[in-house]
Amino acid sequence: MIETVLIANRGEIALRVARTCRELNLRTVVVHSTADRDSAVVRLADRAVQIGPPAARRSYLHVPAIMEAAAQTGADAIHPGYGFLSEDADFAEVCEAHGLTFIGPPASVLRTLGDKATARKLMADAGLPLLPGSTETLDSAAEAKDLADEIGYPVIIKAAAGGGGRGMAVVREPSTFMEHYQRTRAAAQAVFEDGRVYLERFQEAARHVEVQVLCDQHGNAIWLGERDCSVQRRHQKLIEETPAPGLSPELTARMGEASVRGALAAGFVGAGTFEFLVDPDGEFTFMEVNCRIQVEHPVTEMVTGIDLVREQLLVAAGRSLSITQDQVERRGVAIECRVNAEDPSRDFAPAPGVLEEFIPPGGPFTRVDTHGFTGARVTPDYDSLLAKVITWAADRDQAVARMERALAEFHVRGAGVHTTIPFLAEILGHPLFRDGKHTTSLVEQVLDIERK
Amino acid sequence: MIETVLIANRGEIALRVARTCRELNLRTVVVHSTADRDSAVVRLADRAVQIGPPAARRSYLHVPAIMEAAAQTGADAIHPGYGFLSEDADFAEVCEAHGLTFIGPPASVLRTLGDKATARKLMADAGLPLLPGSTETLDSAAEAKDLADEIGYPVIIKAAAGGGGRGMAVVREPSTFMEHYQRTRAAAQAVFEDGRVYLERFQEAARHVEVQVLCDQHGNAIWLGERDCSVQRRHQKLIEETPAPGLSPELTARMGEASVRGALAAGFVGAGTFEFLVDPDGEFTFMEVNCRIQVEHPVTEMVTGIDLVREQLLVAAGRSLSITQDQVERRGVAIECRVNAEDPSRDFAPAPGVLEEFIPPGGPFTRVDTHGFTGARVTPDYDSLLAKVITWAADRDQAVARMERALAEFHVRGAGVHTTIPFLAEILGHPLFRDGKHTTSLVEQVLDIERK
Repeated sequence: MIETVLIANRGEIALRVARTCRELNLRTVVVHSTADRDSAVVRLADRAVQIGPPAARRSYLHVPAIMEAAAQTGADAIHPGYGFLSEDADFAEVCEAHGLTFIGPPASVLRTLGDKATARKLMADAGLPLLPGSTETLDSAAEAKDLADEIGYPVIIKAAAGGGGRGMAVVREPSTFMEHYQRTRAAAQAVFEDGRVYLERFQEAARHVEVQVLCDQHGNAIWLGERDCSVQRRHQKLIEETPAPGLSPELTARMGEASVRGALAAGFVGAGTFEFLVDPDGEFTFMEVNCRIQVEHPVTEMVTGIDLVREQLLVAAGRSLSITQDQVERRGVAIECRVNAEDPSRDFAPAPGVLEEFIPPGGPFTRVDTHGFTGARVTPDYDSLLAKVITWAADRDQAVARMERALAEFHVRGAGVHTTIPFLAEILGHPLFRDGKHTTSLVEQVLDIERK
Repeated sequence: MIETVLIANRGEIALRVARTCRELNLRTVVVHSTADRDSAVVRLADRAVQIGPPAARRSYLHVPAIMEAAAQTGADAIHPGYGFLSEDADFAEVCEAHGLTFIGPPASVLRTLGDKATARKLMADAGLPLLPGSTETLDSAAEAKDLADEIGYPVIIKAAAGGGGRGMAVVREPSTFMEHYQRTRAAAQAVFEDGRVYLERFQEAARHVEVQVLCDQHGNAIWLGERDCSVQRRHQKLIEETPAPGLSPELTARMGEASVRGALAAGFVGAGTFEFLVDPDGEFTFMEVNCRIQVEHPVTEMVTGIDLVREQLLVAAGRSLSITQDQVERRGVAIECRVNAEDPSRDFAPAPGVLEEFIPPGGPFTRVDTHGFTGARVTPDYDSLLAKVITWAADRDQAVARMERALAEFHVRGAGVHTTIPFLAEILGHPLFRDGKHTTSLVEQVLDIERK
């Protein structure tokens, strides 16, 4: 069994993980940079170890310092949260070499699914529907162009090492293909140190719908419903909800079963997410697997009553899943809004600073996951996620009304600090969102109107 | 239909009501004393009207000022919260005379059930089991003493106009009966302007278990599960939970059916609570009906998914209940802790002041209802309830562990400010509470040990 968990992350997700560890009576160690020394999780954890300066490469991504902290504090497991090292196969191997339980899938699974081109092939073999595209990465520009012409435009070029909305380019005109191809490869090489790319037909007006799966080490795999994450700006999710509005239970059940089949084919362990596109005709196609807890996991927790981080920890300790597929009951509707410290009027530029006043919403069926508090300093060093507000209700209209109320009472003030709260409220009020008929292009539509 | 709701209350319950009004797109007006001019609900409400100085008799209980505010702001309904005017039949009549919808039962029902002796008789006639005691109020001391001798000691003398734990005295020795009788009558006369009292056998080692009911104006009545509120100090509840631990579903179903029968007999409308004692043999006896939303209503909301304030508002607007008895599904366990601004080491003396730091808990399955925020001033003018923390989980052990985590992360600091958080944590850790085997004497047992 696990006794001491080192949390190799920061912000709201570090706090999220620490909370469940504490509820399971596990000791917690949090590692942090100098920028986060006064953070909420540092206060909550049993031990906090400062491992480096603000720059993530020298702290949250600095594996030797994290291993040193684990050794010093007697940690026997590492929870990587999301982002940073959470899907890094090398890191999972280093943990194993140090006798530490990595809370996530085995390194080999991270490696297979982390290569988006390989994952695509594996899932095609497992019978999951895919968009037309390449079966392997495309190292020859001419070959890539031929395939794009064959598939038909628009196409999307994706970095094999990318994922999570990073490392991709949409090509609408054949004449611009070569330029995009070269640029995406170069960017992928620079960011991921891996220039390999693959192709898919680009699906306009699609919905982003994903399925939460849980798998243990004993061959049990279940799915816990879907999440619609179509409200995105530049491939970054802003609003997520479950169930996906307007999708038939029959369709989501097929997506769920496909995800479980895919998870078993991959030898998946822990909490994972299968991402799909759903087209206007209700056909779904596989995009990628995320091998970590997602930012938007709370909406699934609110409708199922299942603590996903708890399941991650128990599975990592070798236990069987605490629920079977038959026991998964979904009740009502949950919506999450990501509140970022950004200035929508300045193209969503980060707007950090000291939170002079910070009063989160509360009350009925309202959950807030935030590392913010009055007096906290939001640093410019990391991503700008300040808080997640999640509301639940018996139906979607009530859940949206509750979210509007919760955002209206969320009070944040600080010199230089801006948040996306007004922008989120605008999206919630949009007729397409209201009707649950929006696609991934909703945010761009709203911004286009504002620009005019 | 109702359009504008005047909230005739303060603190967390005023905020609670304003939240649901806003979600229903109802305009809100809040009346407040000068002491509450910077309160959270004043910020959230559409309109705020200052109606008087801190003293409740000149503000929150000052009916003409409230009527004036309603007229000024065009309010068409009044939500009284709990306490203050919430169960005042005269107030309900004044509202009616001013053309305002009182959100609660009709004045006649408030009058009948507000007289605890009359309510006792009504419920006996409806077939609810009662403790041995008087069928009417006892105006003759000699008659009262004879009845007490007949019932057997200990007995409890209760003010007919009391309720909610106020206006009662336990008599253990026949020789002290007359003294207690006279003193309780005098106190009742002074506090309630009504000296009438009645008698019941006093049940030692009992559990306080209550049933939530909802009734509309069309004769529909349902019950939404029970709440165990046995953790009390001087008849004031500190911790509440649902389901009541250790009670068979068969027993609680009988209590629920009895409550519905009683509600229908009384012509009840709105949200009400039937309070019972449950003895060690699992026999239940009726105590009283509360004709308002309870402080502890959130635990019922968390397991049923039903917003009780929403139902109050819809019922007051003439709608039928939105759920039938068959549709009430209860899932998991919810616990509430009342965090008071009191100093347990000084006999729970109020410990108000400015909240220099106030960081409420958050995260999974954790609800906080509080009017507190960093910078808020907790005034000494009203009751000391600062926050309600409610946690939910699939089972009781997890819900308790989650509450312990939530209390541990609740950070409150201010000159002179103390809270009951450490005391609540001590109760949660007590073996009797842990096993769900505690009775209403738990808190006194804990305090007795501390005193020694």
